[in-house]
Amino acid sequence: MGTKDVLKNSSASLNVDLSVIIDNYQTLKGKSNTADCAAVVKANAYGIGMDKVAPALYNHTKCRIFFVANLVEGVNLRKILSAATIYVFNGLFPDQVDTYIDHNIRPILNNPAQIGLWQNEKAPCAIHFDTGINRLGLSEAQTDEFLNEKHQLNLSLILSHLVRSEEADHPTNRTQMEKFRKISTELPNVPASIANSGGIFLGPDYHFNLMRPGIMLYGGNPGLPKLPDGIKQSIEIKGKILQIRELDTGMSVGYNAIWTASRPSRIALINVGYADGQLKVSDRHAKVFVAGNLAPVIGKVSMDMVAIDITDEKFDRVTVANDVELLGANITLEMAGEVSTLGQYELLTGIGQRYNKNYNLGAYA
Amino acid sequence: MGTKDVLKNSSASLNVDLSVIIDNYQTLKGKSNTADCAAVVKANAYGIGMDKVAPALYNHTKCRIFFVANLVEGVNLRKILSAATIYVFNGLFPDQVDTYIDHNIRPILNNPAQIGLWQNEKAPCAIHFDTGINRLGLSEAQTDEFLNEKHQLNLSLILSHLVRSEEADHPTNRTQMEKFRKISTELPNVPASIANSGGIFLGPDYHFNLMRPGIMLYGGNPGLPKLPDGIKQSIEIKGKILQIRELDTGMSVGYNAIWTASRPSRIALINVGYADGQLKVSDRHAKVFVAGNLAPVIGKVSMDMVAIDITDEKFDRVTVANDVELLGANITLEMAGEVSTLGQYELLTGIGQRYNKNYNLGAYA
Repeated sequence: MGTKDVLKNSSASLNVDLSVIIDNYQTLKGKSNTADCAAVVKANAYGIGMDKVAPALYNHTKCRIFFVANLVEGVNLRKILSAATIYVFNGLFPDQVDTYIDHNIRPILNNPAQIGLWQNEKAPCAIHFDTGINRLGLSEAQTDEFLNEKHQLNLSLILSHLVRSEEADHPTNRTQMEKFRKISTELPNVPASIANSGGIFLGPDYHFNLMRPGIMLYGGNPGLPKLPDGIKQSIEIKGKILQIRELDTGMSVGYNAIWTASRPSRIALINVGYADGQLKVSDRHAKVFVAGNLAPVIGKVSMDMVAIDITDEKFDRVTVANDVELLGANITLEMAGEVSTLGQYELLTGIGQRYNKNYNLGAYA
Repeated sequence: MGTKDVLKNSSASLNVDLSVIIDNYQTLKGKSNTADCAAVVKANAYGIGMDKVAPALYNHTKCRIFFVANLVEGVNLRKILSAATIYVFNGLFPDQVDTYIDHNIRPILNNPAQIGLWQNEKAPCAIHFDTGINRLGLSEAQTDEFLNEKHQLNLSLILSHLVRSEEADHPTNRTQMEKFRKISTELPNVPASIANSGGIFLGPDYHFNLMRPGIMLYGGNPGLPKLPDGIKQSIEIKGKILQIRELDTGMSVGYNAIWTASRPSRIALINVGYADGQLKVSDRHAKVFVAGNLAPVIGKVSMDMVAIDITDEKFDRVTVANDVELLGANITLEMAGEVSTLGQYELLTGIGQRYNKNYNLGAYA
């Protein structure tokens, strides 16, 4: 076995099922009969790997529109997908205009100053009209002003952001959607987009011309009561058992001795720590899946390892080098998010750099 | 200006002062008149960049011994430093023996099975004797057994891990140290090491032959009442202002509207979000430094941006594209750790991948 295989075999792994991401895209796109569907691949495709996710969607679906957060991500994506339409959420700084144009990337203009910078360009752009999130985007007054003046922009998209799309019954959603519909009516020839993952499930009024899911592509739940049918988790994280220890009653484990054995105990040390992103020092109720059962994380998570309690008989056959699931079919993102110091979005975007990463196209290979 | 400069200018940045890391090393090494001093560079040198930190220490100090967490990190470090001594904390799996030897990397053997795997090798190795942390390492019974039998290992180091070295007065420290001294006495020709960053400040009894600081090299505080004299923070994280908004009283900001303006407010959006690691969704008291003053983070941190309140007069001159310090001379790791959902170790090892990274050797260039 060569060095590469040895290192691969002994490492914790991130396994990404790209076919699930493709299927999730199709499921989300299927929620509308009329609207197109883009893919949000910012933050390295939510930590999963933009260089693998974006081509999988481009090559195996009709997804042609991608959203990233900033121009660096846009330029990186352009190297991967030469023909895709790429929008950048965070807008543009004065010195970025030429770079946007040179790389055929479309800025989402967020205020009058940015509109001014793009005013004389023939290349397409988008405008973000703020309907209540009060982060980026044109304010209500700036929106009115823009709609009342003539502009020479080559607008290929207008968009807005929902504040709480995962709360289906909250009146803010309808208020935002109606504000956006009014704007859209005044720009009848420009495609419009307001629906993120949660927005897609608010119904057809929210689909407009383009839906733009992010977390649900990857199988995360933005906060809906349950993950919609057809949306599956695309990633799995597995560690390996480094060592097994027998402890007497009263012996404590790890830094600051925050866990003490209340019975003669058998513990296993796994080769994943807080530097790998999934488990955090302040986690107190995390579990992993090993030998067909859930096992509790005990003691303080260390930088490069974590201890689990495998005293119970059901773990008798657990041994060194066994795989341990930290995230996957048995520990879903939803389960992890419920007990974690962090939320599902953070668990994804915080995936560490040390995993041996495997990408599988499944039936689409 | 070329694409590279444009992207660099508009990005949030991680600035690493390698000269500070070099000086911190010298300060720590100076705490003992007799012991040598290694550098712990696991987890990508605590998130800062092993490929820059390790050569800086090797080329500008007499540091010749480096510790990493696993064999992948060891092989990566060997590519960078061909002559350094490299130890791997997490021990070895059965199929790794040849890879350790081929790359001249020394395993830290953590149990009798691992000792058995290395028994017939002439290459040097270390043994970890557990004195109470109950993670990896030989248990008390295994230690006795090892000391009572003849072994043929080429032992270049023995070590142990302190449970709570940052609590100077806790009796566990002395108990561990004395246990380890007893073991060391029985292996009189083998260099010994128990002091991590905190352990160095427990005094000469803890220095043995080799000290091995980690977080203090980088200027983090493992939990001492205050950062010792001469230890300085080596990193700075800066974002840029994307946009400034004027809000009326009653307008809310960000997802789920958790912050509402109680007065006419001026807010700024910064191009750093939870995907960049520093600020987390559950943070409620984080601050940043802009225009010579601290400004509070408001609302829910987004994936790619965060809002701050710059209503006060002292922020009047703040404008788009201004730099904002998230970590640095004015927001120390200690200050950040106090208000963060995460601790200092996690803030370091969680540094995101999107920063424009700058490494500066300062006076050592």
